[in-house]
Amino acid sequence: MKDSTPSILNELIDSLKCLPGVGPKSAQRMAYHLLQRDQKGARRLAFSLNMALDGLKQCKRCNNYSDTEVCELCLDADRDATKLCVVEMPADLNRMEQAKCHSGLYYVLQGKISPLDGIGPDDIQIDRLLTRAKDGIVEEVILATNYTAEGEATAYYISEMLKRSSILVTRISRGMPVGGELEYVDTGTLAQSVYERKTL
Amino acid sequence: MKDSTPSILNELIDSLKCLPGVGPKSAQRMAYHLLQRDQKGARRLAFSLNMALDGLKQCKRCNNYSDTEVCELCLDADRDATKLCVVEMPADLNRMEQAKCHSGLYYVLQGKISPLDGIGPDDIQIDRLLTRAKDGIVEEVILATNYTAEGEATAYYISEMLKRSSILVTRISRGMPVGGELEYVDTGTLAQSVYERKTL
Repeated sequence: MKDSTPSILNELIDSLKCLPGVGPKSAQRMAYHLLQRDQKGARRLAFSLNMALDGLKQCKRCNNYSDTEVCELCLDADRDATKLCVVEMPADLNRMEQAKCHSGLYYVLQGKISPLDGIGPDDIQIDRLLTRAKDGIVEEVILATNYTAEGEATAYYISEMLKRSSILVTRISRGMPVGGELEYVDTGTLAQSVYERKTL
Repeated sequence: MKDSTPSILNELIDSLKCLPGVGPKSAQRMAYHLLQRDQKGARRLAFSLNMALDGLKQCKRCNNYSDTEVCELCLDADRDATKLCVVEMPADLNRMEQAKCHSGLYYVLQGKISPLDGIGPDDIQIDRLLTRAKDGIVEEVILATNYTAEGEATAYYISEMLKRSSILVTRISRGMPVGGELEYVDTGTLAQSVYERKTL
């Protein structure tokens, strides 16, 4: 069998594989779809990829993606500047905003402490967060890193570093999901929610 | 809730939705992945999209994508030029080549007759195929369009148009999949494979 796909097309298929969850088969399907049915969409995608790579900055205050020096959210006077919520990734911040459960400001770590991957506190610039938290306005730092080993380690490290300051450090709670049924929840979560049970 | 996503990023997320099977959530995940972990891949994707849109032609003989006027497969002297296999899409041609079941040449319709969508024989230039088939070398046209209503209609139309020529027109067979078990095959296929049973 000779490969009947021209090299430019092969290159496109191959480069589509950089997308998460896209393997050789999906990449081929995507390439054909773009060329046959959505050339306009493909051109727009190429353009916006370049725009994002060139134009997107990180907000100087919260580290989130922004097209300005300081992002809109950080500049919003309606938000409670005494509460600073720390998340790992921009997607986590979006999730928090969707849940409408936090009216304060954010700090996006853009990573997490992960000794196994050789990522220490310096690699994710924890000292920048500490400087940010100690601005004299922040009264509470809410740690909303994931409940994974790395997220836990990151939360623990930050809480240790803020121990001697007057800032209150809190952690989002862990337990059964809302609407969760014991029969279907994973045993680890269930055990943890018994262990961390609350007095009524 | 104020949208905390900068507009350039929103534009990227939105333009990723042109990919088949990619909804708002996957698009967001893809955008973050590209920006956080694979900026090089993103740049390469933008580049190869533009390259493919600008550089990819259709082979003059078989209609498949090609970066040359006539594609490599059509120029391959080792292939049997007396057999011409007609498929709907370039992906179908690739599948045929993977199956290594056809040593002849191809013609890619780049579509199918679909009255419901208002696509008639002229829209997919069936006359170009007829001219190609009547080159004096082709002895057999193998219709390998899909076994869908549209693929069937397309095959029927082509066979009718070639009826009065001396060219043998064949259709790929239909029936149980190789390794297929009666218990799991869909009833339509099973019924059809009884109806089209062969004498041993």
